[in-house]
Amino acid sequence: MGGVILALVVQKYGGSSVATPERIMRVAKRITECMDAGNKVVVVLSAMGDSTDDLLSLARQVTKHPPERELDMLLSTGEQVSIALVAMAIDALGYPAVSLTGIQVGITTDDVHTKAKILEVNVERLLEELSQDKIVLVAGFQGCNANNDITTLGRGGSDTTAVAIAAVLKADVCEIYTDVDGVYTADPRVVPDARKLQTISHDEMLELASLGALVLQPRSVEVAKQYAVTIHVRSSFNYNEGTLVQEGANMEKEKVVNGVAHDLKVAKISLLDVPDRPGVASKLFQELADESINVDMIIQSTMRNEHNNISFTISRDDLDKALPVVEKVKEEIGAGGMAFGQDVAKVSIVGAGMITNPGVAATMFTALAAEDINIEMISTSEIKVSCIIKADEATKAVQALHRAFKLDQASD
Amino acid sequence: MGGVILALVVQKYGGSSVATPERIMRVAKRITECMDAGNKVVVVLSAMGDSTDDLLSLARQVTKHPPERELDMLLSTGEQVSIALVAMAIDALGYPAVSLTGIQVGITTDDVHTKAKILEVNVERLLEELSQDKIVLVAGFQGCNANNDITTLGRGGSDTTAVAIAAVLKADVCEIYTDVDGVYTADPRVVPDARKLQTISHDEMLELASLGALVLQPRSVEVAKQYAVTIHVRSSFNYNEGTLVQEGANMEKEKVVNGVAHDLKVAKISLLDVPDRPGVASKLFQELADESINVDMIIQSTMRNEHNNISFTISRDDLDKALPVVEKVKEEIGAGGMAFGQDVAKVSIVGAGMITNPGVAATMFTALAAEDINIEMISTSEIKVSCIIKADEATKAVQALHRAFKLDQASD
Repeated sequence: MGGVILALVVQKYGGSSVATPERIMRVAKRITECMDAGNKVVVVLSAMGDSTDDLLSLARQVTKHPPERELDMLLSTGEQVSIALVAMAIDALGYPAVSLTGIQVGITTDDVHTKAKILEVNVERLLEELSQDKIVLVAGFQGCNANNDITTLGRGGSDTTAVAIAAVLKADVCEIYTDVDGVYTADPRVVPDARKLQTISHDEMLELASLGALVLQPRSVEVAKQYAVTIHVRSSFNYNEGTLVQEGANMEKEKVVNGVAHDLKVAKISLLDVPDRPGVASKLFQELADESINVDMIIQSTMRNEHNNISFTISRDDLDKALPVVEKVKEEIGAGGMAFGQDVAKVSIVGAGMITNPGVAATMFTALAAEDINIEMISTSEIKVSCIIKADEATKAVQALHRAFKLDQASD
Repeated sequence: MGGVILALVVQKYGGSSVATPERIMRVAKRITECMDAGNKVVVVLSAMGDSTDDLLSLARQVTKHPPERELDMLLSTGEQVSIALVAMAIDALGYPAVSLTGIQVGITTDDVHTKAKILEVNVERLLEELSQDKIVLVAGFQGCNANNDITTLGRGGSDTTAVAIAAVLKADVCEIYTDVDGVYTADPRVVPDARKLQTISHDEMLELASLGALVLQPRSVEVAKQYAVTIHVRSSFNYNEGTLVQEGANMEKEKVVNGVAHDLKVAKISLLDVPDRPGVASKLFQELADESINVDMIIQSTMRNEHNNISFTISRDDLDKALPVVEKVKEEIGAGGMAFGQDVAKVSIVGAGMITNPGVAATMFTALAAEDINIEMISTSEIKVSCIIKADEATKAVQALHRAFKLDQASD
């Protein structure tokens, strides 16, 4: 305190980093080290360990379908507990700290409860506390809408809180602390020889995050890209350098494919025998969008008669919400039937070099075929190819793809 | 909903009434019955069961001396969980409900964290939600100061929240639901033949509450008296009529003493060999007041030389905070020493008839002496007499006093 300010650092610690009083003390120590190094520090915290799941289970004991406004009211308490306890731990170490909820900071969001988007972050209170040399602890995952109702930002939303605060404060870096060392070429629990990447671009990270790599919430990477925020993904359990997600960085350029991602939390819904009229698909996906259900992959296959099928995938968490919508649309458009499955997974390859290298998709399909893995749906972007396969074949698929694209071998 | 509005009812449910999902469903049912009867309903809730104690224990695992601002940040989550869950339960029963935290209602308090006093309750949001025929669930025990920091109102603070809301909304009645049937002539767990009182005046209730009867927070009765709010103390576990605390009511007039209270959460501190100079007592009690420590009973006894002792009692919860203050004053004024004890209790008799009946105190002392109970301190008001005795003699003392004043016999 006093002295030269080296930088303004925003740190974010996930639930596993603050799961117990002992871990909270360790996180507090780490935060004060950052201040001792001459930095101003703002820290965003998630709820302790499994506490969000515990709160959810409490809600489900009361009702199967809790109103989302009240779910947000309930879940936002988890982060509030964390900020209070970490503030106490920092105080016990002799450093000044102050905790702030989303409402107190002034994190304004839209109205979409349980999945809100941040519209604005007020810097006034943050700057006031920083000017008093305090470490500021902000409850992640939460904000409030224009009506002053508490909203939450969806699973992993604390990442977005941290990046948004780093953006408005023009922080030098946004450090995201998690229980892994950084971003890997594949999930190390699935592929033991997966390698840690030193740097990765926002675009590549966005694809990896969206594809289920689970290291960062996709929305947080979008915001980081938009405001050119550098993210440092690292572990709170050691002092290793992690992975830098930054503007202009690419994963190792020589490689065509630089990561394999998989996502087990996928559900697939099919609308069968859909009358071949214009506007049918538009009606279906508009109604899903109205319920804030993100649709991921879509295929429409024309049958020999004039009817056809529409299949699409969504996050498995949204299945309960999506089924009545699809059922309603089915009745209204006179479709022949509907089907859904939860036993599917998505595997994906990602790399900025893909655009200029034809044949990457073919290599992927060949590698999966060699393992007798059936591909149910395919989707591509400029820097990724994703396939929907059976859930119980996901591990085998990820390992095969990691081998096929030689991701265990460093290129530099 | 629709139809004639019979009344505006404020209800308050304590922690034991919402301790489990099953009890929450039962409370929700009871709330909707009140709405079905044609009332507008505002409900104030405490934290579930032992959850406040669980949060406190979490804090103490992090640090022995948590900053009070952060303690309030932590503890206020307990009530927020309750309002969300009860709102969900009411929604599941098909009734419209909305939960509001202290900040959202606009309950402004002073700055005294962990023991704040309500300065103002904004009715705007409450009236807006009521006008939409919603059941409004308000988090008890909490508010916010002018700086938008969360404050709490001390143990039992939800009672005060309920009474304050009833006052500003000019509610017809404030129903305080608890795990006992009403206000008794003594604690029924200590005196099995204690009787339930039908009515009691605010003044009498204030004495009983302050004396440790624990049915209502004393501050809530003060506010109720000030704004002439009628309180109905009743059980959430049955439909019995409880006790009405109301303006002008007296407990049964023919009785001189109408209740025996006891308080086991007492600590006694003595400052020994205090120099006999003016301003010493004033300094001591001013410094305690500056730390928001309520001093209850005070005695000053002059010794044969020019020194004397000052003894006083406080709530046992405040002991940790009081000792360093007394230690500092001891040094500054050059007192000979200090002592403290936690093994004391306060027993009291209360009754509006006492003013006009001499000899009541003597009867009390005689009854205690007959049981060989030594009296360490005495304090009196117009409608009560209190004695500090050894903690392990409290039960015996309460039973003896209940018998001595024939409280087991109804006078009407």
